[in-house]
Amino acid sequence: MELMEKRIAEQGRVLPGDILKVDSFLNHQIDVPLLSAAGEEFYNAYRECGVNKILTIEASGIGIACLTARFFHCPVVFAKKTVGRNSDDECYTTPCVSYTKMRTYDISVSKRYLSPEDRILLIDDFLAEGNALAALLDLSRQAGAEVVGCGVVVEKAYQRGGERIRGMGYRVEALARIRSMDPETGIVFCR
Amino acid sequence: MELMEKRIAEQGRVLPGDILKVDSFLNHQIDVPLLSAAGEEFYNAYRECGVNKILTIEASGIGIACLTARFFHCPVVFAKKTVGRNSDDECYTTPCVSYTKMRTYDISVSKRYLSPEDRILLIDDFLAEGNALAALLDLSRQAGAEVVGCGVVVEKAYQRGGERIRGMGYRVEALARIRSMDPETGIVFCR
Repeated sequence: MELMEKRIAEQGRVLPGDILKVDSFLNHQIDVPLLSAAGEEFYNAYRECGVNKILTIEASGIGIACLTARFFHCPVVFAKKTVGRNSDDECYTTPCVSYTKMRTYDISVSKRYLSPEDRILLIDDFLAEGNALAALLDLSRQAGAEVVGCGVVVEKAYQRGGERIRGMGYRVEALARIRSMDPETGIVFCR
Repeated sequence: MELMEKRIAEQGRVLPGDILKVDSFLNHQIDVPLLSAAGEEFYNAYRECGVNKILTIEASGIGIACLTARFFHCPVVFAKKTVGRNSDDECYTTPCVSYTKMRTYDISVSKRYLSPEDRILLIDDFLAEGNALAALLDLSRQAGAEVVGCGVVVEKAYQRGGERIRGMGYRVEALARIRSMDPETGIVFCR
């Protein structure tokens, strides 16, 4: 998606430690028109797949998931990072490794909101090691739901996540794929 | 908003401990068409107020904030609950008491994304004690931004939050105002 690459090139900040800050439009401040256009891209990619639910993970995935769901006319479910357990409901739960925070936590979804009737599109902001998508895939598998594919805004294509998820047989659509990035020389996209 | 009251009456679950679970459409699963309609209500209420930014708090506020921002053609900024500090940016920070979780945490917004030029609409899912809105008001005050008002989906009108925020001179629009609720006898709305 040319518009997304352009915005990343203009506003993305590459920091030491392989960090790409895109919080001016993606995951702290949210550029709603831009992410609505992103949602339409995901819709165009998956419109024939019978998607009836979008599954994401709090907090950064929620905005893009909602703006995508508008096109599919379907609900969003977001997996919660469970620190304390204040839910009274039965949940599907799976561990998730955070690449940026260097720790593992559990994510969970109430059993009320995933079912074998669901045809799920997974949405997230970043794909790097693939840990978040793998965890969401596991929650979907536990529920007996079918995942039709994944949509991510930014794929760090030099990390193993894309290969990992595609290697499991899932379709992954990334709106911007980064070949390499460096605090000095900047960002290079896959073309 | 009649549609919202109807949904709360149909799907809201009143649990012991003064808990209203509306996670089938508001804060776990998100009914995107319903919350788009809610966003349009907020737009109709504040369309003449020059809103150029929507401020909310992760995670439950993000979906409704994004679906509201579409009507205002403005960005969303969500305050982060700061457990670890992995941000390199200067932030506005303020303490926030969680009513449901019975603890205090800090919330923060990067100084990059709030400024004295901002005319802010605060959006959140619930108004009970008013702690989240009060914390967002404080972040806005620190930035020198002007808050034109608040929009919440559900106000527990028997708690003190509404009076507290309105008493500070701010307009508050609630789509459903609950007069009383009880696990046995159900939910009564203000009319």
